[in-house]
Order: sequence, then C-alpha cells, then structure tokens
Amino acid sequence: MLKLFYAPNTCALASHIALEEANAKYATVRVDFTTNEQRKPDYLAINPKGRVPALATDDGILTETPAILAYVAQTHPAARLAPFDRPFAFARVQSFNSYLCSTVHVAHAHRMRGSRWVDDDAAIEAMQRKVPSNVADCFGLIEQTMFAGPWVMGGEYTISDPYLFTLSQWLAGDGVDIGRFPKIADFERRMRERPAVQRALAAERSR
Amino acid sequence: MLKLFYAPNTCALASHIALEEANAKYATVRVDFTTNEQRKPDYLAINPKGRVPALATDDGILTETPAILAYVAQTHPAARLAPFDRPFAFARVQSFNSYLCSTVHVAHAHRMRGSRWVDDDAAIEAMQRKVPSNVADCFGLIEQTMFAGPWVMGGEYTISDPYLFTLSQWLAGDGVDIGRFPKIADFERRMRERPAVQRALAAERSR
Repeated sequence: MLKLFYAPNTCALASHIALEEANAKYATVRVDFTTNEQRKPDYLAINPKGRVPALATDDGILTETPAILAYVAQTHPAARLAPFDRPFAFARVQSFNSYLCSTVHVAHAHRMRGSRWVDDDAAIEAMQRKVPSNVADCFGLIEQTMFAGPWVMGGEYTISDPYLFTLSQWLAGDGVDIGRFPKIADFERRMRERPAVQRALAAERSR
Repeated sequence: MLKLFYAPNTCALASHIALEEANAKYATVRVDFTTNEQRKPDYLAINPKGRVPALATDDGILTETPAILAYVAQTHPAARLAPFDRPFAFARVQSFNSYLCSTVHVAHAHRMRGSRWVDDDAAIEAMQRKVPSNVADCFGLIEQTMFAGPWVMGGEYTISDPYLFTLSQWLAGDGVDIGRFPKIADFERRMRERPAVQRALAAERSR
C-alpha cells in the first residue's frame, strides 16, 4: 500500500489531494517539523533530502511533488488526472508543475528558508523583503499566461490543480492578496468545494 | 517541425542533447542573452517567462526542461529515452529531473542570478559566497544517494543523463571540483564520448 510522508502546510498537500482524487488506497505518516524530525536519521533513511513529501510504494520510495503527482495519476488511470496518451497535453501539465516547483515554490521559500542560500541575517532579511513582489509576479504570470480556466489546463481537471491550490495557500503568509488574481481566487474557492480537497485538508488538521 | 530556442551555457543544452539522442527533426534558434533578447517582446511572445529553453511544436510551445525532455522522449519512442510503460521507473526519472530543476539549478543560479531574489549588493554577495558549498552538497547527494551508474538510472540511458551532464558543466564556474564526485566525473567523461552530445555541443559553439 502507498504511504505518504507529509507535514501540514507544506507542498505535500498537493500529493495528498491527488491521492484522494485518485481514490487511492494509502496511509499517511506525519513528519514533525517542530522537532526537526525531517533531519533525523530515521527520516533521512526514507528521504536523504530531508524534505516532504515522500511516497513509499511497493517498488520503493518516490520524492519530488511533480514526480509523485504524475505517478499517482499514471497508476490510477480511472481518475483521469493526467493526459498520458496525449504527449503535448501531458507536457503542458508537466511544464506547469515544473514551473511551480522550480520558480514559484522557490520564490516563496526565500521567506522561511533563506538559510538554504545565505548565512548572514542581513541577507536573509533582504530576501524576505523581496518575497511579496516575487511571489506576486509568479502568480500574475500564471493568471495572465498559463491558467486556462475553469481548471489550470482548461476544462480538464488534472494534477496541476491540487498543486496550484497548495501553493495558493501560502499567498497570505507571503503578504500577497489572492484577490489580485481573480481567476486564481475563483479557482481556489472552487477547489475548496471538492470533496477530495476537503478530506485532505481535514486529515492534515486532525492530528 | 520542432524548433528549440536556446542560449549557450544554459540548461537548454539538456533538451538539445535529448533531441539529438532521439534523432528528432528539429531546428534551433539562438536567443542572444548578451543583448537581453530573452526579455524583448518578440521572445516574450514565445516564452512569457523570458527564459530558455522553449520548444515550438506543431501543437504549441513548451517550456521547462523536465517537460521538454519527457515530451521528446514520449514522441520519439524508438530512442527509448524514458520508461513510460513502467510507472515507478518513469517516476524515478521525473523525480531526479525535478530535483535538478528545483534544487540544483536553483543553488547554481544564486551565483549569477541573485537579483531574482534580492535587491541589494551585499545580499547578492552573501548568496554568491554560499554557492560553492550548496552546489557541492547537491552533487554530493546525487553521487551518494541517486546516481545508480553507469547512467543516472542504472543500465538504462534516459533523459536524466543529458540533464545531469548539463548541470555538471557549471561545476567549475561555481567553484566546485567535479573530481570530488568520482562517479559523476566518470559519467561526465562518458557522456562526452556520445555522438549526440558532441553534435549538440558543436552546434552550440558554432555560431
């Protein structure tokens, strides 16, 4: 059975929602970031990167959100979460998810995880000052050039949707008003109405 | 026909090599970073992110290296560049490529592209100071926990190989001796012997 290692308020939520959308059989394991459990030997044996999410499968462990999302979609074809049989459409999904992990998540991470890239406090504060405009630029570009609507890819709900929803949860903390992006704000509201999203959010809050 | 927008010494090399490995029919268009062509309206109409690579296809334009690599592999199945029919194996390829784009490329980018994340010079210098250790940590983790050998995924040559080769080209400039990672150093040498790699490198140098 699949086992998702997650922590609340992280990008693991995207995989969690996708597992719910796929009606997958899975268990969850909460990794306690408050005690830095992700940096301890037991968890590093699961994911040497010391991050979440990680998905344990019968074949081994997978990490990195875009990979986990596509894996969940491919192994649960009935849920139709990614258009594997249409290479260009699938590549658009991959392109969007890759932008989220390599640019949007990274722009956000400079607020709380600045010590990944610098060692002195003044530079960390300089990073934090630019986070609101950087994150807003990313979401502006998504709103204007990528988001087809009503879902990210258009009429088809895909693994790009839980991922964008997850990153949109961080906007307020980053000092960005989601109302600046009307299409994304409407999308975020509609995502909250989906039972799979509600189940994943409730599960992450319940422990 | 496919058209690859690239600039020399960028991550576009990975897609360029993959197109050669796939024996694809394609043309290349060089984007002149020395005149900031990537930020001008003509190119922004192709890729609003103002980055390379971009791959123009008959169906539209694709961006983001992991997406382009998987697209080239999927549309050129005879080259067997990704195990689409084995979900876990494909997910491992995706996971590796996702790590390269979201963590390794980002660690490197703090040397030359610091102004993406901060506005003051002292902070940019603070970022640059940490690049050698950050990039070395990434390659150390790859060497120790991800690289199966002789290729990234083991016996099977995949789209992860041109991508790792491309990022390994930046090590010296980042102040990291590739010799610290014997498996990757050996891999880099063997990649250079591949005709597809030689053709892509020669094409990028020839104009």
